[in-house]
Amino acid sequence: MKAAREHLLERGYTGFAVEEVAERAGVAKTTLYRRWPTKDHLAVAVIARMQDDVPVTDTGDLEADLTAYLEEIALGLNRTRGAGRPDAPSDRSAGLVAELVAAAARHPDIGALVRDVFARRNALALDLIDRARRRGALRADTDPVVLFDQLAGALYYRLLITGRPIDRGYVEHLVRSAVHGALPDQENR
Amino acid sequence: MKAAREHLLERGYTGFAVEEVAERAGVAKTTLYRRWPTKDHLAVAVIARMQDDVPVTDTGDLEADLTAYLEEIALGLNRTRGAGRPDAPSDRSAGLVAELVAAAARHPDIGALVRDVFARRNALALDLIDRARRRGALRADTDPVVLFDQLAGALYYRLLITGRPIDRGYVEHLVRSAVHGALPDQENR
Repeated sequence: MKAAREHLLERGYTGFAVEEVAERAGVAKTTLYRRWPTKDHLAVAVIARMQDDVPVTDTGDLEADLTAYLEEIALGLNRTRGAGRPDAPSDRSAGLVAELVAAAARHPDIGALVRDVFARRNALALDLIDRARRRGALRADTDPVVLFDQLAGALYYRLLITGRPIDRGYVEHLVRSAVHGALPDQENR
Repeated sequence: MKAAREHLLERGYTGFAVEEVAERAGVAKTTLYRRWPTKDHLAVAVIARMQDDVPVTDTGDLEADLTAYLEEIALGLNRTRGAGRPDAPSDRSAGLVAELVAAAARHPDIGALVRDVFARRNALALDLIDRARRRGALRADTDPVVLFDQLAGALYYRLLITGRPIDRGYVEHLVRSAVHGALPDQENR
């Protein structure tokens, strides 16, 4: 996994090769193929592992906890920008994530795998939001999925579509905006 | 453009070929290549044209206007799901958009083109939000980009990452959530 992650971040999706991961890890490539039948499968496993490394902490301060969590996600996403593209380090390339998204669209089994990874990972954040709702820190009719879509969606939208930067200040602003809404005080429902 | 759009939606990105567009349109393929040097360029032009067809209306009711606009975008996105994949119509494939995102990540010039298309299109929605802010319907410190990221981002996140459906009820819920926020009434701010 460590060898695969390093190789993937160095070479990007296009340059990612199971043979080279096997060589780097000092194992037979058949060993890898037995567990991950294609390079797509291995790449998704790497991403899954990277995501499992992101902690979700519940301190009772939802905004702070969401901000900390999304900052970790943003760090990971920014690391994938232009992976394998040493020629274009300052390009706003979506790199690795874009290739995974395309692989997921092309191959139904990869798509199912990617969605499973995200569903498992997102369950922790959704639970964090739902606990805040249950203790009355959010409106009772808050749908955690919708709120989380607004947050994670904004990060991926910037990464994959508009190419705008995702820095700490942006994440803080985003969380505040999503939780508080945009209505003037007197009109807030 | 019409021939290219039909061909793209029928065959998807992988099956999209400039030669076939030329044949369908009854023009020489050199005519097309003169204006769009690769199939990626032609595909981006098609998407750009499809997006120009989506109207932004300002009736003075921001929530209704944003909902109407995002519903049009959702319709377009749902049409691209599984484009060119008649074998998997019910698959949650992101299809066309995923391929464009990957092409944009792979080729810097395509990336710049895609970002231009979105910047031009999004400018209308950002202006709609900013007019609401200026007339006091939104808080004075509202950043239209952050609010729009939450809305458009959520749609693309569902299309490309989680594969969840994007229907009319979801769009209404999303706009309400982003504009009103999630805090209980008395605690808003």
